[in-house]
Amino acid sequence: METSHLIWTEEKREERYRTGVMSLYDVECRSPEGKLRTFSVIDCPDWVNIIPVVEGPKGRQFLMVHQWRYGSAELSVEFPGGIIEEGETPEAGAERELQEETAFRAGRLIKLGSVRPNPAIMSNTVHFYLAENLIPLPRQNLDEDEFVDVMRIDEKEVIANMGKPPYIHSLSVAALAFFLKRPK
Amino acid sequence: METSHLIWTEEKREERYRTGVMSLYDVECRSPEGKLRTFSVIDCPDWVNIIPVVEGPKGRQFLMVHQWRYGSAELSVEFPGGIIEEGETPEAGAERELQEETAFRAGRLIKLGSVRPNPAIMSNTVHFYLAENLIPLPRQNLDEDEFVDVMRIDEKEVIANMGKPPYIHSLSVAALAFFLKRPK
Repeated sequence: METSHLIWTEEKREERYRTGVMSLYDVECRSPEGKLRTFSVIDCPDWVNIIPVVEGPKGRQFLMVHQWRYGSAELSVEFPGGIIEEGETPEAGAERELQEETAFRAGRLIKLGSVRPNPAIMSNTVHFYLAENLIPLPRQNLDEDEFVDVMRIDEKEVIANMGKPPYIHSLSVAALAFFLKRPK
Repeated sequence: METSHLIWTEEKREERYRTGVMSLYDVECRSPEGKLRTFSVIDCPDWVNIIPVVEGPKGRQFLMVHQWRYGSAELSVEFPGGIIEEGETPEAGAERELQEETAFRAGRLIKLGSVRPNPAIMSNTVHFYLAENLIPLPRQNLDEDEFVDVMRIDEKEVIANMGKPPYIHSLSVAALAFFLKRPK
């Protein structure tokens, strides 16, 4: 497939603003027609999201985390996840975040897929995992300012209500796309 | 359900940086335990994403757009979509973006759901639609610096390969979660 009429080339990149978790750049790019244009791009580390599955009294359940989200200023019930630390593999990051947030470790961790959270403005990747055969740990291991409740919720409830509060997080919904398309 | 031990309260908000499509704020919040902490939050307009469905020679196909994404600096094949303009309803934005990018209008536009693209750091919402009974228009209506190829791709190919290049966009995958869970 001929794609050269679609491809932009980066010519220059300058950091404009930095926060604790991201850097914002002005990136000067040359268009397929040769024009120079400047775009804002955010760099941040890669993320993981984990779907932890348990058997409940009425069938399969997910372990989900209930927490405040500052961006949209509301409570969210979503799959555990977070930032992959420097030097950590995605799988190790998934196992660590699962343990810290839910107080379970995975007997079996299965890669579901990866996507770009927002390739229009962000450079990073999020990796999705399914965690099965969960083994309980003594306690959560949260940061000082993390307040996270763990909930067991029926798979059917989550899938039926995705997108409705509190199941608002697009990355939990994207993780569910991989979950829904698996061979049953 | 008792949630007061999870809820943060915003005390102050200051704009720190602004680009053409987003504003970045420092938001000072009080924790459930009464401590003050500052977080970076990005405000930007709401978005729409549309799954346009057509009948192909071998079954159902999606209309998708092939374009360069500056954030991750790569080509992406994804559902048409974009920013809802000021004063526009989500439905009108979906119809406009569909027409501009694909040169089809929807005979029938069905709301699939809405999610927060990233409630951890962003305030906005993306609305998903299914577009059926497509009616061809004379041409695309792209901005000067938009280079977008329209492709017809088998539904099975897209679902089987979601997450793999060029099907990298998390919001297209989240849209597919709503598509996959519909009653068949």
